[in-house]
Amino acid sequence: MNNFVFENGTKIFFGKNVVRNLGAEVGKYTRKVLLVYGGKSCKLNGSYKKARLSLEEHGIEIIELSGVKPNPSISSVREGVKLCKENGVGAVVALGGGSVIDCTKIIAVGAKYNGDAWNFLINRDSAKAGLPIFTVLTLAATGSEMNSGAVITNDETNEKFDYACQYMQPKVSFLDPTFTMSVSKWQTAAGTADIMSHVMEQYFGDVKGSFIQDKFAEGLLKTCIKYGPIALADPENYEARSNLMWASSLALNGLLSAGHAYPWAVHPIEHPVSGFYDITHGAGLASLTPNYYRYVLNEKNASRFADFALNVFDVKNIGSDMDIANKGIDALEKFFASLGLPSKLRDLKVGNDKFEEMAKQVYSRTQFKGGFAELSINDIVCIYKLSY
Amino acid sequence: MNNFVFENGTKIFFGKNVVRNLGAEVGKYTRKVLLVYGGKSCKLNGSYKKARLSLEEHGIEIIELSGVKPNPSISSVREGVKLCKENGVGAVVALGGGSVIDCTKIIAVGAKYNGDAWNFLINRDSAKAGLPIFTVLTLAATGSEMNSGAVITNDETNEKFDYACQYMQPKVSFLDPTFTMSVSKWQTAAGTADIMSHVMEQYFGDVKGSFIQDKFAEGLLKTCIKYGPIALADPENYEARSNLMWASSLALNGLLSAGHAYPWAVHPIEHPVSGFYDITHGAGLASLTPNYYRYVLNEKNASRFADFALNVFDVKNIGSDMDIANKGIDALEKFFASLGLPSKLRDLKVGNDKFEEMAKQVYSRTQFKGGFAELSINDIVCIYKLSY
Repeated sequence: MNNFVFENGTKIFFGKNVVRNLGAEVGKYTRKVLLVYGGKSCKLNGSYKKARLSLEEHGIEIIELSGVKPNPSISSVREGVKLCKENGVGAVVALGGGSVIDCTKIIAVGAKYNGDAWNFLINRDSAKAGLPIFTVLTLAATGSEMNSGAVITNDETNEKFDYACQYMQPKVSFLDPTFTMSVSKWQTAAGTADIMSHVMEQYFGDVKGSFIQDKFAEGLLKTCIKYGPIALADPENYEARSNLMWASSLALNGLLSAGHAYPWAVHPIEHPVSGFYDITHGAGLASLTPNYYRYVLNEKNASRFADFALNVFDVKNIGSDMDIANKGIDALEKFFASLGLPSKLRDLKVGNDKFEEMAKQVYSRTQFKGGFAELSINDIVCIYKLSY
Repeated sequence: MNNFVFENGTKIFFGKNVVRNLGAEVGKYTRKVLLVYGGKSCKLNGSYKKARLSLEEHGIEIIELSGVKPNPSISSVREGVKLCKENGVGAVVALGGGSVIDCTKIIAVGAKYNGDAWNFLINRDSAKAGLPIFTVLTLAATGSEMNSGAVITNDETNEKFDYACQYMQPKVSFLDPTFTMSVSKWQTAAGTADIMSHVMEQYFGDVKGSFIQDKFAEGLLKTCIKYGPIALADPENYEARSNLMWASSLALNGLLSAGHAYPWAVHPIEHPVSGFYDITHGAGLASLTPNYYRYVLNEKNASRFADFALNVFDVKNIGSDMDIANKGIDALEKFFASLGLPSKLRDLKVGNDKFEEMAKQVYSRTQFKGGFAELSINDIVCIYKLSY
């Protein structure tokens, strides 16, 4: 187990009707907020009405920013920052899934930043303060509700960058699983794949002796495997929705990486894909993950993939580590397919003419290592092709 | 899954030599601390020297309270409170295991309380403030390093009471597994039993649909089952010591009870035993737990015990739930015995003449329900007799 620092100060209200506590929690910080959301889904699932009601009951003035889209853009951030500065708001409330929350986080820091928000994404560590952040989660997927990270797209350059800083850790997040009951089958499946990918990015690494982290990761993967299909078949199943929602937070709140931090692999490879083609992030991950694993699997790391096969997919312990490992990867691919997710990028209407450009972007931004294996730009092109 | 609020603000520094950060962290709050410890073990394992060095390097004045004993007494608390008030210290640093940490937590609140510290233990919710708390952990057991609770004994009345409040949540805890390498076999075994008991108290409950919490609990139990014996056979095994240490914190930091809170059973039954006989808490738990489970096991709750047997002890899935459940309880008893812990209270030199008095004390303090089963005073006497 590696040395680590773990700290996660986000307070979680979890369960039915917990949003009634929003106003009281926000009221500890301010009397004027920016409420950020996407489209009509938050009006259909009841979260918009409940959040506004609780804020109004506590006499909190609400400025709104709506229309935040999936793969949120720096344009939305700029609009939100402008509203914060013009109106002197004292906190931001995100109402939605990871895209809305990520956008809101960058707005929170941008509102305290003297200059264009894209600049502190480019010049890391330049953010020095942020407005308090509150989230009302309506989609189980990114885990952004309980961490300090965000992913944002520059809609002028198609660059999709991630950023994290302490000022982006939400003060309080409200997780009511009933808000996710109206999430479409497609988004439920993609969200489940996203949660699983976050867990697997942290599970597959070369750190030895972090048994607890392995058991927690395997437990979260089993949670997704058990409840993803139930949520698809029976969207109003509270047990399924609540387990998926809490899994999304626990997958990426620092718990799995504490003592077991390792460079991520599939997310950096996926980001240019959804950056260029505006596909659903979780669906992109589902297409790429099994093929990335097949590409990097070798005799040296086979035992790790075998652990995964045995402990997550209950593959029978027969044959070599390589045999078992391959069966585990196949089981993962089949599981994604059973959720209705595409095994191929072409099914997501991704073209095959930008692989070089996308592979170069993986390297241009991040100090990419490739997880288990050192990967060249050409290797990444091969993984795109395998997944195409 | 039940509704819940989860919040845990303790910052954890984990790993080799992390205590070098103590001075910098304390320095954010004060320039004068009370350093609380037990006997000579912290001088033998190096933690005392390293903690003092880091504090001194940051110019922090140190007042000392030493001699805190296992099952810490209100007398030690009073002594610490007096030192805090007389010297105007701005923070408290606990250096030791759960006993020292618990004592320090009550001192922290007592130092800000106008009256005798025993009073706010009796009149709950009367604490309104506390000094910032820092812990340097030297024993993997109680989990006190990452929660807001404490257990304290009134050495005049033999009452052993638990108390929790927000002011007793440590600001920062330093977990260096190497400090636990010199812990005796007996304390290592008892600590492992204590961690397991904390997990099982939360695992065995009647809350449905909290699958994640179950998987995390089973993972922590498997951690103890894997690494307890390794730590006994090879005390300097870092992998074993680090997994046990992190397990102690995760077992009782709110994660397992979030969504799955249920009244504890074995701890309330054990507290009068160690209150009267000053035995090692974890050893008392090891003697009582299997017998408590046998006493409450019935057709209605057998499936829960069967889950435990199958998922924690890998009992073969053959026979009825009752059969499997009993095999699981037997496996637990055998595991404790394999660590060198007594299966019977008499082996801990506990007498058999105070069972009635002890059973009455279980009820006098807590709103005791008995976990799975409503238990009368006579039932508790029976459990003591079964365990004797």
